[in-house]
Formats: sequence, structure tokens, C-alpha cells
Amino acid sequence: MPQVTFLPSGKTVDVPPGTLLPDAARAAGVSVELPCGGKGVCGRCLVRVESGAAVSEGPPAREGFALACRTRAGDGPLTVEMCAGHAGEIGQFSGFAEDMRAVEPELMPSGVPTPLTERVSLTVPEPKAGDGLSDLDRVSRALSAALGDTAEVPLEVLAELPEVLRQSGGETEISYWRDGARLRVAEISAERKKRWGLAADIGTTTVAAHLTDLDTGAAAASRAAYNAQIECGLDVISRIHYASTAARRRELRDRVLGTLSGLIGEMTAEAGISAGDIVSVSLAGNTTMIHLLLGIVPEYIRLEPYTPAVFEVPLYTAGELGLPVCPRAPVWTAPAVGSYVGGDVLSGLLCTRLESLGPGDGPMLLIDLGTNGELVLGGEDFLLACACSAGPAFEGGGIRHGCRASEGAIERVELDGQGNILALSVIGDAPVTGLCGSGAISLTAELFRNGLIDAAGHFTPEAGRVTEDGHKAFPVAVREDGTPITFSETDIGNLLRAKAAVFSACQTLLGMAGLEFGDLERVYVAGGFGRYLDLRDAAAIGLLPPVNDLRFLGNASLTGAYMTLVSRQARERAAALSGRITYIDLSAEPGYMDQYTAALFLPHTTLSFRD
Amino acid sequence: MPQVTFLPSGKTVDVPPGTLLPDAARAAGVSVELPCGGKGVCGRCLVRVESGAAVSEGPPAREGFALACRTRAGDGPLTVEMCAGHAGEIGQFSGFAEDMRAVEPELMPSGVPTPLTERVSLTVPEPKAGDGLSDLDRVSRALSAALGDTAEVPLEVLAELPEVLRQSGGETEISYWRDGARLRVAEISAERKKRWGLAADIGTTTVAAHLTDLDTGAAAASRAAYNAQIECGLDVISRIHYASTAARRRELRDRVLGTLSGLIGEMTAEAGISAGDIVSVSLAGNTTMIHLLLGIVPEYIRLEPYTPAVFEVPLYTAGELGLPVCPRAPVWTAPAVGSYVGGDVLSGLLCTRLESLGPGDGPMLLIDLGTNGELVLGGEDFLLACACSAGPAFEGGGIRHGCRASEGAIERVELDGQGNILALSVIGDAPVTGLCGSGAISLTAELFRNGLIDAAGHFTPEAGRVTEDGHKAFPVAVREDGTPITFSETDIGNLLRAKAAVFSACQTLLGMAGLEFGDLERVYVAGGFGRYLDLRDAAAIGLLPPVNDLRFLGNASLTGAYMTLVSRQARERAAALSGRITYIDLSAEPGYMDQYTAALFLPHTTLSFRD
Repeated sequence: MPQVTFLPSGKTVDVPPGTLLPDAARAAGVSVELPCGGKGVCGRCLVRVESGAAVSEGPPAREGFALACRTRAGDGPLTVEMCAGHAGEIGQFSGFAEDMRAVEPELMPSGVPTPLTERVSLTVPEPKAGDGLSDLDRVSRALSAALGDTAEVPLEVLAELPEVLRQSGGETEISYWRDGARLRVAEISAERKKRWGLAADIGTTTVAAHLTDLDTGAAAASRAAYNAQIECGLDVISRIHYASTAARRRELRDRVLGTLSGLIGEMTAEAGISAGDIVSVSLAGNTTMIHLLLGIVPEYIRLEPYTPAVFEVPLYTAGELGLPVCPRAPVWTAPAVGSYVGGDVLSGLLCTRLESLGPGDGPMLLIDLGTNGELVLGGEDFLLACACSAGPAFEGGGIRHGCRASEGAIERVELDGQGNILALSVIGDAPVTGLCGSGAISLTAELFRNGLIDAAGHFTPEAGRVTEDGHKAFPVAVREDGTPITFSETDIGNLLRAKAAVFSACQTLLGMAGLEFGDLERVYVAGGFGRYLDLRDAAAIGLLPPVNDLRFLGNASLTGAYMTLVSRQARERAAALSGRITYIDLSAEPGYMDQYTAALFLPHTTLSFRD
Repeated sequence: MPQVTFLPSGKTVDVPPGTLLPDAARAAGVSVELPCGGKGVCGRCLVRVESGAAVSEGPPAREGFALACRTRAGDGPLTVEMCAGHAGEIGQFSGFAEDMRAVEPELMPSGVPTPLTERVSLTVPEPKAGDGLSDLDRVSRALSAALGDTAEVPLEVLAELPEVLRQSGGETEISYWRDGARLRVAEISAERKKRWGLAADIGTTTVAAHLTDLDTGAAAASRAAYNAQIECGLDVISRIHYASTAARRRELRDRVLGTLSGLIGEMTAEAGISAGDIVSVSLAGNTTMIHLLLGIVPEYIRLEPYTPAVFEVPLYTAGELGLPVCPRAPVWTAPAVGSYVGGDVLSGLLCTRLESLGPGDGPMLLIDLGTNGELVLGGEDFLLACACSAGPAFEGGGIRHGCRASEGAIERVELDGQGNILALSVIGDAPVTGLCGSGAISLTAELFRNGLIDAAGHFTPEAGRVTEDGHKAFPVAVREDGTPITFSETDIGNLLRAKAAVFSACQTLLGMAGLEFGDLERVYVAGGFGRYLDLRDAAAIGLLPPVNDLRFLGNASLTGAYMTLVSRQARERAAALSGRITYIDLSAEPGYMDQYTAALFLPHTTLSFRD
């Protein structure tokens, strides 16, 4: 079998001739991103053919280069160099505790936690000769007397029940949860154990989680990691494309379960507990991510009329999902509002006052800036939600020297009127690798503020001192290997399209409610992306409306998942909310495209709010 | 590591010094029976040490011999010869169809089957833009409209739902089942598939099963095999002893699941169907067997006050049990009456009229002769049940040249007054291996009829022409290798104890109801063992009472499992029955031991019914 060698790591693998390079790379333990789902369009999997023969479909991207997703190993040895950056270490995250503090105190659960998994101390009578009662009969009667319902006892619990009853002398601790009229037992134990809960936000790019003490509500550990599905597509549409076969749906499911398992392993190690003592789970994620986590066919989310398999996921158990915690732990999932306004948005809404606005309150807006942009507008008697495709620009995609917000990424730039760089912030103070989304926004805002680009995003004569592939570009920095990092008019155009999508969605929602930007009393900004965002810069380019009360929530979806984990009231809020939100399909709104086109300028053609 | 060689197969295995021989044997793929559960008392695991050094606990059984269960590998190579016969091919079984015909026609389900898993054809509306309904929402609404309850859709069904709905254009077939107020979906498919059911009797010695067409109720295939747990103990008490650790409970569970899986594999191959199309399962077994199949700690079944973990097993799914059929198939288990009167007896009762006796009927008795003996006495207004330990004699255990009723076993003997053998029936017309239970009963009856033994089971001067180990014994046959098969006074004594246990149980039950043998209108005899039993011989030794209406049901437990598989009415009969039966603990009955002692004679000291 021919040997394939991947540079720069030098990892090798023997594969049958005809093996697709991404498959060979994975077999070799080399990470390959397929943002477009392997359709040969995004170019992120570009490789340079160092030596040997590869078989490519279609013409080469450039002489001596090939798209890995369209290229197969030939008959002889092959050495290729990976061109693109790969999913590396997780980037810098602002503190989880900071996100918690960002929520208005009256919205945060307080007092004794009320997780879905409840607990009761129960005295089960000893067995007696001739009473005709099995262990299960006596437990069921005791539970029924205590809780008024017939309990379902899972087989694994029944299997150990005889020992538990005799070890405890009948003095048992029973963990259970309610699902409608059902009363489901999770655990029967001889002693009172500490109980833990898991709250997680399943993002397209990032998975983040809290391990929580269910007796006190205190967070014991928090972690985030890139969603290991990233290699199968950067956005939800690419992932849905990728999920076209049962084997790939299993792969996607295994990948995100792997990411979650890693986080659980790290957090339980930090807290010094057993994952089996996690007896309650609360999840939030967008509609597609939840489908993929559950192994559900996601195909029809992307096809008209965009109908998902499920909005409100039934209460399955961790064992059914494959999560490495107590297998009988219930998994509560934040209900989705629409195909593209998922449970993550609803979970984030719990961190806002949008659903409880009274006559004295002005309307409020929640903008969640993830890989997709989602917006919810709340008034005294309405909640409107919509989603827009911001594209990957905010996360460094579609920008020539773009990258995700991880170590080495330029996240902030300051210029003077001559285009001199006064300051440059790099994540982790590491050697620069590229421009992340906030860096691109910051740079665009500075270029515009200093008159170096015009409202259409074109360089003025004062700027654009280098050209790249025939286009004007602005030099930002130089990498260690001497290659320049530049920012071109094309890059600016991509960024403007992203901001236009979000801004016009905002404008459309307001229009439907008969409101204008000035009417907004408060804007909440959520999303992992938002962590790196300078809100002044965002307003300068017209991404966000200029309001006085702008609140930054961070990962509101995760904070909301924490709230539903520890609070019955939060779960009730979520259930009530999901029925109250009107989902707006922007593609069906006649005015949206016009507003989008108008917003392709700095800051906009229709409005002019500049700081 | 020292190598251990097992003769006669010559199989070898390398094991660490100190490995117990049964563990080494299993690792080598050599079958070892531990009827006593490895306590070193039954002697069935005797091995001859051919060469090398073994480390035995306690004195050797005989010079040059050792009990495998108490012997470990030493430091050097070891060769041992297995002395006892091993679980071989399944013995001869009377036809399953014959058992079905043995049931009175009015008791057998007729008409369209009513299995637990029901089916409905359902039109699910197509998805519409803006209706805000997921696939699951539309299915749930349609189901609720059709069946009046909220359905639980398992994750595996939800995962494929989008494709099923779109392939079928919404014209679906839904399999579901009810569990109290719960409505549980097993399958949603685009086309109407044939549905199959599995009925099985989990016996201590034998597992038997029917594959049934759920549309017609016709049996498509039937199979039986030895329960692979046999190697861990021949009776329930030995198995409970064996099940002392979690690892061993897993082993026991895996063993019986292996046996069941084998039967399912053979039957589905014969019928040419996929095991995944088996959507309903009905099981019957004694209390211990059901505990072991479910992996439940059985320990307290054998300890006072003999309380099992469960009498009435909740409706678990085949997936939860680990059965290789549709994982969402419900598993209905016949409820147990007591620790030693299990669901197998209740299932067998469905093949009798015992629970519906009216003023015109005399009392009736069911005797189930398995490894344990179970009896149910029914009258106009009572049902009394008890169990007695018949011991292994009926199955060839405790008889020096005893064997199970498989090929080569002598099952019937005819003598003349001089002790000459007039006829000898051997199962399978194969070379003789030993005496099975029915052979021992037949021989004892013939010896007694012809005056060759007295009422105490001692040889008269006319018989006992050979001696064995200083005891008188009767020569029955000679094996191919020239070794004689004899039947000693000790063997007769063991058989008489077994019959005394059953008979005195019978007498005690009658006494509690104020009845005598002559009052019995009918006796049903059930049990795999009964298949080989000559009822005239059984009455001659006093095992069974002499009644005119004696009916042989064969494996009534399996027939009952079939009935509950295909008939709602049968399941309702079973549920009603389990609450009506009074369980009598014979060990707590003062008169039982006296009656037992009196019954240790031929046919009895108190009664004299001879044919």
C-alpha cells in the first residue's frame, strides 16, 4: 500500500490506492478541516504536493497544489504539506464567572437548587416471611406513599436493589425525576452522596460546560473546547451536507460526544469526583447541533420548508445519548424556537429581561453572534426572533489572512491618520498568525475612522500601499517566517456583508414591530465571538445599533443552561418562552434584501451612527 | 506461564500459576460443569492428573484425582483428564406442536393475535412553512388523535423519523405498546412489515423458544438448547451460590443470553427473517432464572425470609435486557408467585383449567417436574402452590451412572421376575452412556413390580447379583468400553427421596385443602422432564397419584409463554392469576417432614396405590 506523508508534522500512514486524502490524514492522526463539508469549494483543505503522485478530480487549485477533499492517494508514495491552519488549542475565553455576573441578579437562580433530579430519604420496610412482597414491591410502595406516584425503576437499579436494601437496613436515598406524569428513579443508594450536574452549550465552533454542585449550585469547574465536528464543516449547513449518510451521522455524533467527554473528564478530575455522580444534565445548542448530538437526520433543516425533526427534545437519559455520566441522569435540552433559532438562543434569553417587559419598559433586543447571527426583539406583548447567515467572517473565515480567535490572532488594532499602526493586540502575546474576527472589525473601524477607507470599503488614496494579487491591501503585520499579513478590499467586502446581514436582520425585526433603533431601551450582546469584540468598533462599522444600554453577556447560552440545570423556575421560564416567540423567516420577508443591500456600507446608507 | 492440557480433547492453554482449573478450562474452550457451584461437594468436576503438578485444597478425592473447582495450576506444565460427561447436544424433545395440542382447545388463543405490540397505520401531515411543527410534533399529534394518548418516541426512532416521513410521504406504520398509562412507540416505518414475536421458557436446565408470526399466531420455528449456565451449577441454589460477585452475575447473564441468542439465530435463519423484525417478547422462567437473566442479585432468594428482588418484572425493552431482537420490543415476563414458584409455573397454569373451576368441577392439580418440583392445587375458590426440592435425581444427578436425557441415555427398562432385561430403550439408539431420570424411574418400578426390591428400596435375595464399592447393585448394561452401568441401593435411595419430596408436597397441599387423592378430578403433569416419563411407572413408585384423568402437557411454561405472546386475554389471565395464588412454604408446614419420611417407601407407607 502506498505511504502518504503529511508535512509539517511528518506523520505517515499506509493506505490503499484511491484513499481520499482527508481519510488518510485522519488515519495518520493529522487534523484536516473541511469547512465546506468536502465539496471542494472553500479551499481550506489546500495541500502542496511535495513529492509523489496524487489523483485529483478537476483542475488543480494552483500548480503543485490540490484540494485534499478532492484528491486521492495514487499507487506510489506521496508527500503533501498542509497549507491551512488547523484547529489548535482552544482560544482565550473570558471567565465563566464573569458571564454569570453579567446577568442581572434578579434573573439568576438563588437559594437551594431545584434540579430536575430530586432526592428523597426513604425507609423501606424489611422483608417479612409471608408478606408476598418483593424488594421492588416494598420500594415502590414506600415511594408511592412518599411521592404519590408509581415509580419506574430501571433495570440497572433493580439489579443492585437487593444489596442496597440490605446494606442500608432499608434506610435509602433515592434520586428520581419527573417527566409529565412519570416518576423515574435514577438511583437508589445506601448513603447520601454528593450530587453533581452538568450544563453545556453545544456550539457549532465551541463546546463549553460547567460542572455544578447540585446541593449548593456552585460551579465546581468550567471548560471549553473546540467542537471536534469542525473538521467536517465550519457552519451548520456544511455539517448538514456532511451528515448525508448514517455512518457520517455516527461520526458527527461520536465527535461531539468525544468533545463533551473530554470536558467532563477534565472537570471531574479537577473537582476530584466520579462522573457517575453527575445525575442531571442541561444542554443548549442550535437546532442542527442538537440534531447531530442526538444522531438525528438533520437534512430537512436546510431544505424547504426547513422543518427539523424536533424542536422540544423529550427527556432522554444520559445513557441513551451516550454521555459518560450516570446513565440514568435525565438530559434536559433547551427547546428550539425555529430551524435557525435554536435552544441556545432560548437559553440565552433566560439571561435577559425580554420576556417580562411591562408597560414601563422600552423594547429590548438580544443579539447572539455565533457562527450564525440570531436576534430576538422583545416588547410589552411580543417576542420576535430571526436568524441570519453572518458567514464565517466574524470567526476569521472568508478573510485571506483570517483565523479563529486563538493564540497568535490579532484581536485589536489602533491606527493614526497616516495608516501607521499605533498598537496591535495579539491573543496570548504569541507570534502573530492572522486576523481574527474582532481584529478585522477593529481594523475596519480604525481604517474608516481615520479616513483610510470610504463608506463602500474602498481604500482612499492615503491607504492601500501594497497590492496583493492585483487588489489593494493594507499591511498589518509580518509573520515570523517573513510572510506579510494584509487586509484587502475583498476582505473588507466580506466583513461588510457579514455586518450587513446582522444589521439588516435587526432593522427588519424592528420594522415589523413598528420600531426604530432609537426606541430600543437596551441591547444584550451574547455569543462566544462577542468575547473579543470591542463594542465601540462594532458600532463604528454599523454592526450594532448605538444604544446607551448595551450589555455584554458572553456565552449566555451556557449561563442559561446552568440556570435550567439548577432551577425549576428557569426550566418553567424556558418552557413558557418557547411557546411565546414568533419565528420570522427573513428569506420570506420582502424588505430584508433591500435593507441588506443598504447596509453594505460604512456604517450604512440609511443611517449614520458613528461614534 | 505454565501450560495446562485437557484430555481427552487435548486442548491447551497457558495460564498464570495459581489459576483455578475451571477458569483454565474455559480459557482453553473446554466445558466444565460445576453443579454445586464450585464448592467442592458434588464431585462432578473430577479430573485425573495425567502428568505435572497441581495444587489442590484439601485431600485428593482419590489418589491421582482432584476436584477441578478446588485445584489450581502449579508452576510447571500440567495435563489432566476430565472424568465427567459434559453438556453435550440437546437431548430429544417431544414436538412443540404436540405440547400445543395437549392444551384444551377452549384455553388456547384463537382468532387474530393480540400481542402487546400493536400497530396502527397513520397519515402524518406534510411539513408546512410557518406551522411551527417539527416532525415529532406532527407524529405525536397524529398518534394522539388516533390513540388518545401522548406517545413516547425513543431516540433511535426519532433519529430516522425525518427520512421515514419523507420516504413514505407521511403514510406510516407505527408499532407501539402500552404500559399502564404510557404509550411507547417501538417503530415507525414507511411500509407495512411482517411482525414476529418470541416466546421463551428459561429453564434451569433447558431454554426453549418459539418464533411466532404475530399476524397469524402461527409458530414459524421452535428450538431448545441447554442453558449455558449449567456449567455454573445444576440447580437454582448452586447458581445463586455461583452468582456471588458482580462479574459472575454478568457471566451468568451473558451465558443465558448466549443460549437465547443462539436459538433466535437458528430460528430466524430457518424462517428467513431478520431478528430486528421481532417486535414482541414473552418470557417465562423460575424466579431465580429470571433474576439471573436480568442480572439481578439473586442472593436473598435462598436466604430467609426468601425474598426475591422482584415478582412482577416491569416491562423492560429487549435492548435493556440485551436480547438480539428489535431493541424497542417490549419484554413481557410471567409474574412469579413466590421465591420457588416462579413465572414458569404461572405460565404453565394458563394451559390448565385450575383457575376457572366451578361448582360442578372437582379439584385439579398441576405438577411441574423440572429440576425443582412445583405444584398448584386448584379448587372452586382457592389456588394453593408450593415447591419442593426434588433434587437432581430425576435428571440423572445423584445416580452413580446417571446422565441427562440426551443421546445414549437409557430411558426405559423392562424386566422379568428373574431380573432378566427384556427390553431397553436408549435415546437416539446410540451407544449407551448411562441412566437418565425416566430410565431410573422405569427401572425402579420394574424392580419393585417384579419383587426384586422391597418397599424400602433394598434388593431382595432374587436380585443384587453384583456389588459395587461394597453395595449391592443391579447390572443394567455395559458401555462400549466395557465398563458396566449398574443401579445401586444408594441410587434407589436418592430416587426415593426425590419422589418422596414431590409426593409429600402433593399430600400436604391436599391436606391443607381438606382433600384426599381420590378427590382429584384431574392431574396435569408438566415439565421438560415429563417428556420422557412413563406415567404408569411414575404411579408405580408413588411419584404421582393414581387418578383417571392424567394429562401430560410437556413444556407448559413455553406453551403459556406463547399464549401470553399472542393474546391479551392470556396476559390478563396471568395477571389475575398471580394475585389469586396462595404460596405455601413447605418448610414452615409442620406435617410436611412426617409425610416426606413416610413417602420414602415404595409406593408409600401410608397409601398403597400400585398399578
